[in-house]
Amino acid sequence: MNLLAIDTAGKTAAVAVLRDEVLLYEAAANNGLTHSETLLPMVDTALKACGLRCADIDLYGVTAGPGSFTGLRIGLAAVKGMALPRQTPCAGVSTLEALAWGMAGQGTVVGALDARRGQVYWAGFDLATHDRLTPDAAAPVQALENFVAGCKKPLFFVGDGAALCYNRFSELPGVLPCPQPLRVLRGSGVALAARRMLQAGRTVPPAELLPDYHRLSQAERERAEREGRAAPDHPHP
Amino acid sequence: MNLLAIDTAGKTAAVAVLRDEVLLYEAAANNGLTHSETLLPMVDTALKACGLRCADIDLYGVTAGPGSFTGLRIGLAAVKGMALPRQTPCAGVSTLEALAWGMAGQGTVVGALDARRGQVYWAGFDLATHDRLTPDAAAPVQALENFVAGCKKPLFFVGDGAALCYNRFSELPGVLPCPQPLRVLRGSGVALAARRMLQAGRTVPPAELLPDYHRLSQAERERAEREGRAAPDHPHP
Repeated sequence: MNLLAIDTAGKTAAVAVLRDEVLLYEAAANNGLTHSETLLPMVDTALKACGLRCADIDLYGVTAGPGSFTGLRIGLAAVKGMALPRQTPCAGVSTLEALAWGMAGQGTVVGALDARRGQVYWAGFDLATHDRLTPDAAAPVQALENFVAGCKKPLFFVGDGAALCYNRFSELPGVLPCPQPLRVLRGSGVALAARRMLQAGRTVPPAELLPDYHRLSQAERERAEREGRAAPDHPHP
Repeated sequence: MNLLAIDTAGKTAAVAVLRDEVLLYEAAANNGLTHSETLLPMVDTALKACGLRCADIDLYGVTAGPGSFTGLRIGLAAVKGMALPRQTPCAGVSTLEALAWGMAGQGTVVGALDARRGQVYWAGFDLATHDRLTPDAAAPVQALENFVAGCKKPLFFVGDGAALCYNRFSELPGVLPCPQPLRVLRGSGVALAARRMLQAGRTVPPAELLPDYHRLSQAERERAEREGRAAPDHPHP
């Protein structure tokens, strides 16, 4: 089974090709270019490096959120386009779960993305099983305090929000440092999370692949404030 | 400081670009093509993705052994060629140390490469500091038994020899599994090991970059046997 996985949720664009459980190709670019410039050439390079075409792909994995609104739409639109002609199954993966698959061990890993305004998108996962411990959520960094104090140690933070978390929690016992290159979202992390969704029967046809933004866009938030309405936490179920 | 790191020691070809401690680009290909076909296009893609040219590289890192004799020579020759015009400093990195930099935590990580004939090239590293615990060595898998029993746990095996090690030691307490994509040598692992060599003042001019094969080639071994001589363990100091 050939799996093509991509990620454009954050600043890094990532791609990976797995054949069954074996990584054939992986690349990640954090070069300041926009995903619309970077992603499709990266996919093309990945497929050529493996001697594959889209017709050979049996499952697409893509980060569906949380993340940058524009980034998520670029990744999802690209996968929909590639998957549509053959109705290839797709797995819309939690960005935070894909991050968690970059680490192994016994303890806890928290995937964290910088959500601006002192907030992070975050979720905790068991480091051995990669089972989810908390739902994906947006919160101020200090709101992680109870989870960090109570979770199984050691604890790592990964993702582009990890630095914010380490700033606050690195002195706590059992919170271990993680070199920056190990915090980066890897295409293979998306692929491993997508494999688990396949095993759980949670893949969808391309038309049903949807982003999960986890909060309103700035424009929607400001409109709600103007109109005196409270902005709901989870507008896109 | 821009660092270009490459690896062609095993079946996978890997490349990474770091700016200071931050990963700008990384790719790994395990596609059955020869390194002589794969490596330079990968380097070209990596540099272009970062908007860099060879003239912008301040340090080259390359796996200098152990590994495939032909693979090591391809990687070292490529780096020598790129580094020569400006006498850019080079770091010849232990393949096993580069593997160890792919994991973090508290405990031990063993880098292991399949050395054929039931043997592995192996070395143990502290998972937190990445400090070396044992020298690079070639040995039958069962010869790791004392080290595995006595080292700080948890213990991970990484590299293309990890499967051989897990086959023998996975039942022991504290030996933790590691998904295949996390066992693969990453360009960023070469880069992080090269950074440490730079900090320790252990870089060399390109002309002094040498492979460390760790044992005789098959041709040299067979000749020694024919002539009734014992093959030395470490022919290339």
